[in-house]
Amino acid sequence: MTRALAEETPVALVYDGTTQAVMMATPSDLTDFAIGFSLSEQIVSSPAQITRLERHDQPLGVEMRLWLSPEAKATLGTRRRTMAGPVGCGLCGVESLEAALRPLPALSGDTRFDRSALMHALNSMRRFQPLHTSTRATHAAAFHASGTFLLREDIGRHNALDKLIGARARARVGQTCAEGAVLLSSRVSIEMVQKAVLARAPVLVSISRPTALAVSVAQACGLTLACRANGTLEVFTHPERISGGASHVV
Amino acid sequence: MTRALAEETPVALVYDGTTQAVMMATPSDLTDFAIGFSLSEQIVSSPAQITRLERHDQPLGVEMRLWLSPEAKATLGTRRRTMAGPVGCGLCGVESLEAALRPLPALSGDTRFDRSALMHALNSMRRFQPLHTSTRATHAAAFHASGTFLLREDIGRHNALDKLIGARARARVGQTCAEGAVLLSSRVSIEMVQKAVLARAPVLVSISRPTALAVSVAQACGLTLACRANGTLEVFTHPERISGGASHVV
Repeated sequence: MTRALAEETPVALVYDGTTQAVMMATPSDLTDFAIGFSLSEQIVSSPAQITRLERHDQPLGVEMRLWLSPEAKATLGTRRRTMAGPVGCGLCGVESLEAALRPLPALSGDTRFDRSALMHALNSMRRFQPLHTSTRATHAAAFHASGTFLLREDIGRHNALDKLIGARARARVGQTCAEGAVLLSSRVSIEMVQKAVLARAPVLVSISRPTALAVSVAQACGLTLACRANGTLEVFTHPERISGGASHVV
Repeated sequence: MTRALAEETPVALVYDGTTQAVMMATPSDLTDFAIGFSLSEQIVSSPAQITRLERHDQPLGVEMRLWLSPEAKATLGTRRRTMAGPVGCGLCGVESLEAALRPLPALSGDTRFDRSALMHALNSMRRFQPLHTSTRATHAAAFHASGTFLLREDIGRHNALDKLIGARARARVGQTCAEGAVLLSSRVSIEMVQKAVLARAPVLVSISRPTALAVSVAQACGLTLACRANGTLEVFTHPERISGGASHVV
C-alpha cells in the first residue's frame, strides 16, 4: 500500500546574501511565500521593494534569494542590529516580550460581508485543497471576495497564509487583502491575526476557535474575527461587517 | 453566550540574562516547557546543567529565566557566535539549510509495543486533555509506557512535545522517553521527529499522517513512526517494535 505524504523542505529566505530565516515548508508557490513572508515580517512594505528574487534548489532544501531596494535594505540592516526576535538576539526578557507583541495598524473600511456567502466559501475550501486531499497533512489559507477565490496550501499554517498574502500582492503590485475575507483551515493564534491585519484583511474566518490573545488583538485593531462552530458562524469581534442571518455574536 | 478561549502568551526563554527565543505558548507547565525546550534545542544535555530556573510573570508575557552550568554556558556561547538558526544569523543559504537538518543520534533498544495497547492509549488521549475539551484549540503530547501515562497540552504542537519531554526529564533527573512511546494529537513534521529522537523515544505515534521528510529522518534514525488511520495503526518505519495484530505496514 502506498500513501501520499506531504513534502516538507527547509526553505532558507536569504536577503542580500544573508539568511533571515529557515522555514520548513511545502516546496510549492515559493515565490508567493518569499514575497508574503517579506511583507508579513515587515522586511518590505511592498513587493516593489524586492528588486530580484531567485529560487535555487539545493541538495538539502531550497534557497529563496531576495535582493532589496536601498531603502528596504537599510531598514533591515537597522533591524538586524537591534533585532526584534529570536535566537541569541541580545535582548533581555522584557524587551523581547515587547517585540513579540509588535504594534499593528488599525483597520478601517466599511466593506460588508454576507454571512451565508462567507459560510459557503468556508465550506467550499476543501474542494480547492488538492494537496490536503492526497496527503491529509496540510493547511490552507484562502482569499474570498466578490468574484474572487484564491487558495494556497502548505504543511504550516503560517506559511499557507504568507503564500496567500504573497500571491495577492503579486497579482497586482501592492494589492492587499483589503477587499475581501481571509479564510483559514487552521487555528487562529496571534501571529495569524498579525499577518491578516498587516495585509489589511478586514475579516478573518477560521474553522477552529481563536486564542484569547488573538481575540483581544483583533478587537484592538478593528479586525472582524469569526469561526465556524456547529454549522454556524460565531463572530468574536467587530460583527458590524457581517450582514444577513441571525447575528450570532459570542 | 460565552466561549472558553485558549490562553496564549509570549514566553521568553532567557539564558544567563539573554533571550534565546520567544515562543507563543499556553502559560501552564512552563517549568516543564523551559526544561524540555533546553533539551530539544540541545542547549543542555541533562536538566542537571540548569543550575537555576525562575518564572517571572510580566505585563506582556512570561519570562523563564535559566542559568546554566559553566559547561553548558560555554557551549551556548560558542553556538551563539556561529549560530545555527534564524534571523540575521550571518549564515548563507546553504549553511543554514544544513543547520536545519541537524545530525541526530541513532536509536537502539528492543522494547516492543503491543499494537492494541498503543491504539487504546491513542484513543484515550482526549479524555486527558481538559484544555482541549474546553477550548477546542490546543494540542497534546503524551508519554505511554507500561503503567505510565503522562500528557501535556499547549496551543502549539512543538511546545506540547517540549513540555512532555521536560516533564519526563524532571520526574527523575536525566530520565528520557526511552522506555515508552510518544503520542501526538498533531501532524508529524521533521521537528517533531527531531525532538522525539533526542528524547530517545523509540516509538512516535500520531493521529495524522507524517510528512515525507519526517518519514525519511525517522527511518534513518531508527525511530518507529506510525499514525492512526481509519481505526487502525499504519506503521511507516521500523515496524519490528510493534507486535500483535495484523501488521499493517505502509
